[in-house]
Amino acid sequence: MKKWVYSFQPGQAEGGAADKNLLGGKGANLAEMCALSLPVPAGFTISTDICTYFYDNNKTYPADLEDQVTAAMKKVEAVMGRTFGDAGNPLLVSVRSGAPISMPGMMDTVLNLGLNDTTVQGIVKQSGDARFAYDSYRRFIQMYADVVMNVPHHMFEDLIRQHKSYKGVSDDTDLTADDWQRLVGQFKDLVRRESGQAFPEQPHDQLWGAVGAVFKSWNSQRAITYRRLNDISATLGTAVNVQAMVFGNMGNDSATGVTFTRNPSTGENVIYGEFLVNAQGEDLVAGIRNPVDITKSIGGDASMENRMPGLFKQLKDVSTQLETHYRDMQDIEFTIEQGNLWLLQTRGGKRTGRAALKIAVDMSAEGLISHEDAILKVDPRALDQLLHPAIDPNAHYDVLTKGLPASPGAASGKIVFTADDAEKMGKAGEKVILVRDETSPEDIHGMHAAKAILTARGGMTSHAAVVARGMGRPCVCGTTTVHIDEHAGTMTVGGTVLKAGDIITLDGTNGHIIVGEVPMVEPSLTGEFARLMQWADDVRTMGVRANADTPKDAETARRFGAEGIGLCRTEHMFFEPGRINVVRQMILAEDIEARQDALDKLLPMQRSDFEGLFRTMAGLPVTIRLLDPPLHEFLPHAEAEIAEVASMAGTTPERLKTRMHQMREVNPMLGHRGCRLGISHPEIYDMQARAIIEAALNVLKTEGAAPQVEIMVPLVGGVKELAWLRSRIDAVAQELITAAGAKLDYTVGTMIELPRACITADTIAEQADFFSFGTNDLTQTTMGISRDDSGSFLGAYLGAGIFERDPFESIDVDGVGALVEMGITKGRTTKPGLKTGICGEHGGDPASIRFCRSVGLTYVSCSPFRVPVARLAAAQAEIWEAKKASAAPAKLKAAS
Amino acid sequence: MKKWVYSFQPGQAEGGAADKNLLGGKGANLAEMCALSLPVPAGFTISTDICTYFYDNNKTYPADLEDQVTAAMKKVEAVMGRTFGDAGNPLLVSVRSGAPISMPGMMDTVLNLGLNDTTVQGIVKQSGDARFAYDSYRRFIQMYADVVMNVPHHMFEDLIRQHKSYKGVSDDTDLTADDWQRLVGQFKDLVRRESGQAFPEQPHDQLWGAVGAVFKSWNSQRAITYRRLNDISATLGTAVNVQAMVFGNMGNDSATGVTFTRNPSTGENVIYGEFLVNAQGEDLVAGIRNPVDITKSIGGDASMENRMPGLFKQLKDVSTQLETHYRDMQDIEFTIEQGNLWLLQTRGGKRTGRAALKIAVDMSAEGLISHEDAILKVDPRALDQLLHPAIDPNAHYDVLTKGLPASPGAASGKIVFTADDAEKMGKAGEKVILVRDETSPEDIHGMHAAKAILTARGGMTSHAAVVARGMGRPCVCGTTTVHIDEHAGTMTVGGTVLKAGDIITLDGTNGHIIVGEVPMVEPSLTGEFARLMQWADDVRTMGVRANADTPKDAETARRFGAEGIGLCRTEHMFFEPGRINVVRQMILAEDIEARQDALDKLLPMQRSDFEGLFRTMAGLPVTIRLLDPPLHEFLPHAEAEIAEVASMAGTTPERLKTRMHQMREVNPMLGHRGCRLGISHPEIYDMQARAIIEAALNVLKTEGAAPQVEIMVPLVGGVKELAWLRSRIDAVAQELITAAGAKLDYTVGTMIELPRACITADTIAEQADFFSFGTNDLTQTTMGISRDDSGSFLGAYLGAGIFERDPFESIDVDGVGALVEMGITKGRTTKPGLKTGICGEHGGDPASIRFCRSVGLTYVSCSPFRVPVARLAAAQAEIWEAKKASAAPAKLKAAS
Repeated sequence: MKKWVYSFQPGQAEGGAADKNLLGGKGANLAEMCALSLPVPAGFTISTDICTYFYDNNKTYPADLEDQVTAAMKKVEAVMGRTFGDAGNPLLVSVRSGAPISMPGMMDTVLNLGLNDTTVQGIVKQSGDARFAYDSYRRFIQMYADVVMNVPHHMFEDLIRQHKSYKGVSDDTDLTADDWQRLVGQFKDLVRRESGQAFPEQPHDQLWGAVGAVFKSWNSQRAITYRRLNDISATLGTAVNVQAMVFGNMGNDSATGVTFTRNPSTGENVIYGEFLVNAQGEDLVAGIRNPVDITKSIGGDASMENRMPGLFKQLKDVSTQLETHYRDMQDIEFTIEQGNLWLLQTRGGKRTGRAALKIAVDMSAEGLISHEDAILKVDPRALDQLLHPAIDPNAHYDVLTKGLPASPGAASGKIVFTADDAEKMGKAGEKVILVRDETSPEDIHGMHAAKAILTARGGMTSHAAVVARGMGRPCVCGTTTVHIDEHAGTMTVGGTVLKAGDIITLDGTNGHIIVGEVPMVEPSLTGEFARLMQWADDVRTMGVRANADTPKDAETARRFGAEGIGLCRTEHMFFEPGRINVVRQMILAEDIEARQDALDKLLPMQRSDFEGLFRTMAGLPVTIRLLDPPLHEFLPHAEAEIAEVASMAGTTPERLKTRMHQMREVNPMLGHRGCRLGISHPEIYDMQARAIIEAALNVLKTEGAAPQVEIMVPLVGGVKELAWLRSRIDAVAQELITAAGAKLDYTVGTMIELPRACITADTIAEQADFFSFGTNDLTQTTMGISRDDSGSFLGAYLGAGIFERDPFESIDVDGVGALVEMGITKGRTTKPGLKTGICGEHGGDPASIRFCRSVGLTYVSCSPFRVPVARLAAAQAEIWEAKKASAAPAKLKAAS
Repeated sequence: MKKWVYSFQPGQAEGGAADKNLLGGKGANLAEMCALSLPVPAGFTISTDICTYFYDNNKTYPADLEDQVTAAMKKVEAVMGRTFGDAGNPLLVSVRSGAPISMPGMMDTVLNLGLNDTTVQGIVKQSGDARFAYDSYRRFIQMYADVVMNVPHHMFEDLIRQHKSYKGVSDDTDLTADDWQRLVGQFKDLVRRESGQAFPEQPHDQLWGAVGAVFKSWNSQRAITYRRLNDISATLGTAVNVQAMVFGNMGNDSATGVTFTRNPSTGENVIYGEFLVNAQGEDLVAGIRNPVDITKSIGGDASMENRMPGLFKQLKDVSTQLETHYRDMQDIEFTIEQGNLWLLQTRGGKRTGRAALKIAVDMSAEGLISHEDAILKVDPRALDQLLHPAIDPNAHYDVLTKGLPASPGAASGKIVFTADDAEKMGKAGEKVILVRDETSPEDIHGMHAAKAILTARGGMTSHAAVVARGMGRPCVCGTTTVHIDEHAGTMTVGGTVLKAGDIITLDGTNGHIIVGEVPMVEPSLTGEFARLMQWADDVRTMGVRANADTPKDAETARRFGAEGIGLCRTEHMFFEPGRINVVRQMILAEDIEARQDALDKLLPMQRSDFEGLFRTMAGLPVTIRLLDPPLHEFLPHAEAEIAEVASMAGTTPERLKTRMHQMREVNPMLGHRGCRLGISHPEIYDMQARAIIEAALNVLKTEGAAPQVEIMVPLVGGVKELAWLRSRIDAVAQELITAAGAKLDYTVGTMIELPRACITADTIAEQADFFSFGTNDLTQTTMGISRDDSGSFLGAYLGAGIFERDPFESIDVDGVGALVEMGITKGRTTKPGLKTGICGEHGGDPASIRFCRSVGLTYVSCSPFRVPVARLAAAQAEIWEAKKASAAPAKLKAAS
């Protein structure tokens, strides 16, 4: 017989904190507190296995569940000295959901379960307070009907309001036991009318109704949405906790409250919390009465410390005990029933990124946890908040509307609608926010000039989002409520019309858009931040580099601790004004001589770019990717531009358009790009190889040190492409190095971004000095999903649980990951110790970084502002790998 | 010391016919003939290993090559009793290239090598004929200078012409020994002037110059192009054959000729050939004199049989001996020198598809070869010619221009420029040829109505090409010389302007376009063809199905021997007039009710399509793929259509355009299509599942038998997609089957066409009853190449040897093939014996079919007209697999 139900009572528990997956977070911690002999009302937990069973078996339960529940209830009755459903001395219980990870989207709580017209009399007798008994009864009906029977809460409130009006009173406290009794009757009528079913009278039916509601709520739309937003797997399931009731509303010696063992906003090491006298937990949550600080008396409201000093001391001791026990800041729910402290829940407290950092570093300093524990305690994603200016937590403001939080940080500035305006005003020293329907590579200069970017369209991986994250600009994307009329120079949200020049504030951390300016706080890279980063660097073995295309990016990357450049996209340099037209000349050249002319003009520009980059990164590795995107991406769009380029290229706009039409591709992602350009137009890569090597030689001469130059060939599908191109690159490089009489080492490697490259990595490695996995494109090809087009079905996929996360945000371990692993393994079969890295969005995602470590990548590379995130994530991955390794032998032993 | 040089002389040879890869075809057969003691002039072969060495080592030779050549030359001298370079009794040799596969693109032959001003006197003495000696000498200079020193042949001819004019004679035969001697001097001057180098006097230098020229010609542009066109690997390399000269031009008892052991056009079993008295081989090739039939005397030209009966009998005996020895029709080159027959070459004779078929079947009937040998003797691609009407081989006509031979067969008809005209005129009983820049899915009805299709743009795998092959319509694509002005109703080729209604003839087998009508011969599926097909079916184990979307396609498929339908593309039915507007309604529906309305209209249409198909295929498997392409493919393009659809859908053209703009995708191939449509719009697949099952139930009821219905979900990337959709499909199917009270089996499987599907095939197999590999899309994603866009760089890739063949024509074994194999292996780990097939273009390509057999696919599916090709290729693959299997143990034995 499988065990489905786990009992707990002070001093005795089946399970503990380690059983979260089985008992849910709440259940596991209740058991743990019982094991510590803390004052916890007795109860039992129905495990998450039942949730899985429930959904695997057409929403039914195993046959033996009911017996196990009955037996567990008997134990609770024995501890509490009351009997569930007993007329004279009834036991009331709460029923709460409790998933392994806390989930506000689910059914939360039904209190006072077990009440009916008979047992209510027992409560009257127990408490000697008929008003309390009927108030509890009506609360139970209200809650149960709302969460189990779908009768909206406000309907009950309407009945109460009517009754008060009929009685001519204004407060609930003015209602008597009789009033509540009468309302109980009205409530039951309402339930029958609205739900078509009678309110269940039998405590047994009530219990199973509530249990079923918890399991069903696991797949409510809200829960699904919450899981999607918070990356929680749908397979975990929820547990159900059934626990004897205690009452914080049994008079002025009763209370209910919540305490944090440290300040969850700042991380300061002082107990922090709120409580309400003579109230039940839901009163605190509902916000009907203002709660009182547990340590600070304000006005007439005495703090708990002042009002109930003995109980406060007990709470403080318990709080310290729990924090020390769990070695983490705790969020504790408590109830005081007629002078007795009861603990209803403890869990790791939610905290801001700032608090997480301080708590982790402090606890380590206090000797409570090790450096490694401190590293594991900070969610790398939370660091992001700390690396950008943020809206002052004390500021008051109204949110105009919300978009996707595409790139963190906040900024205020004047609205501009074109990249050119952004650049013009930016140069004039104005702070501007670039507002566009969507951005394209031609907007880059405007994005650089702007303090933040707002787009009406596009998702978390749209052009605007990716580029903004790379630049460290706050960005809010996909703000569908915003209507932009570039022509009229307005952006409209509902009834609000904003004009170019109006000031707005963007918060890219939460997607908020605010009218006017809001006070900011600046990020600090010192103090706790620097300490934690140092610890992380001590632990991790995987390198962290940055994707950087300009000397400025490279400097930022260095400041954030990057150990080199993992990806320099040479084409980004092509979009700079004054260059784009030369690039267009090159593309539109009708013969090789004309193309060579344009390339000769580009050569000194590229060389000088590389010199800047190389100076910043002298001594460090710098991976430069040769031209990658399809050439038509560089072509003009507007009629005026077309006319201009046509005249430059000595052709007519019509002829130019024909040329552009010929170059148009059905699927540009799979088109004439990457090394295919290098093979069909070898003169382009020749020029780039020359610019790179010349720049390195120049820097070597002037600075005395060059970077470790790594020339990267993109979109290779097989060894022949690389061999063909490498021989040309080597020829250019050798000639220049010999002519300079210098000693310059360089390597030639490849992006691995096609499935075929992974499959044939053993032969590719014969020609490659390093592999850099381009998992953006590898995801597109492996899954056959265009990043630009996935928005139309991604929602359906996440909703149906087919995808757990957007595969462009976090690597698809089973598919793309398997190919990456195959690529590494095959590559190292040919070249043991082959240097392997990853560049692209996944390089800054903690889950993906963990994967990278597990398959033995040499380094990850991400945008400069993600470098600290990656450093921390890499350290965490290292610790987990070590734990896995040390756990493995034990497992093996057990198996043998 | 490695052996590089292999000697041969009658009765003695180092090597034989089996050593083609080492000695080249020519060299291997010379050795083989020597081993048979046939009269072959002595010589030696420099192996293909030297060619590989030459290119791997910067065009140099191994140090020990020269000694081996010198030693081999000494043996030839001994046999012939002459000495290479000797003044008194010189040995002359020919130098010929000889690759493992015959390649006209390479340097062919230098004759009479060894002549210089000294040795020519020796020849005068040997032959007693000064004119012959100097004629030979000048021929040698002419040939050598042309092929080794790049001095154009016509320049020498000009000198001869000038000299004749100076002498006042008109024929070469009027020139004397002195004249030729004088011309030799002029020739050498010409060589020095044109090449900047003296003509080599030393026979040793001549020999090495010719040998080097052969190896260099391996990578001449012509050779590369030829290899590309004929799918010959660049890694094979060529051998060089050096052989003692014999002379067919030493008087009237000398001759040169070529004979085929059977008729290479018809396959008839009679000796066939041509010869020239008193001539050298090149005279036959050059076509200066008309050759004479060896068996038929015509006019004053006596046949060889009549003129030299003894030698003819000897030739006939040798011919029979060689055919019997090689068990194949031979193409034999011979020379008669002063009454002695010498054999210079034998090789498998080139033949037409018709001849190949007859020879194979006849030889088997004659007991010369087995059924299996007969199967192996016919190139499956040649069968294609036999399955379509062809231009009468005896017809005379002028070719207007040439395009790509995209779909075989020939047809004549009136030019039409639109699909609608094609349909209208086709219905009126006119034979029409559809002429378009390129075709799109909206042209399907016109392509059906036309006898053949001509496009100006697009390659071998363009829409027109793929659809035409599927329909069995002749098609010529990518005819860049044709300028189409649809508006004016003209097609122009150079100065020729053709109008709508003018008659043209298209030959899709060779890409010819001809003005006017040309006589045709009809294909025959009986006789030798039927016999060979029967033998193939007896041998093969892999199934052959057809891709068919309509009952008519299905009937054709059955006629050609298909054993089921491997791919029915339901969307092709959507384009039919009268339906497309309902489809558009469905797509543009703004809510689910409106969409359901449109689906309700589509349901009976789809059901009736399936009923037609199922009737034709009762008892056989039919795989139906649910809707696959992105919905926007079905949207209207022209303004008028947009207006019409807008009015139907109750919206405005502007709004419709906005909708269409929203649906536009950057990379539609990787977009919202396949099962993604089924998940985001489940009602579409629900309707299709219903139509399929209802149709099967109806056919079962009326015919008493249903086909084996296989419902195929496209573009699956992981098991969750399939599980989600399968549960809906099963629900629809079970409900209908239960309601009908019938017994109907059906299976649900998936297209494997994404790398991720191959990688996770083990889990997908949990939900799939079968896999069908969609290698078109799998190639696109694995290699990251869009089929529609690859034209812009494919040429460069084939030219550089990076691709050996277009991967969309023949499967990329190392990349795509590896994934297919992984998919099968993983799938069968979960479900041993899982049914696996391939559908798409590769299913009709013999090399790909061989791959399919090697990895254990259950069946291949191809267009109906390729079915016989696939049956034969599958039989060949079976035989090769068996040979591989039986060879393996021997190898193992040798290794152990």
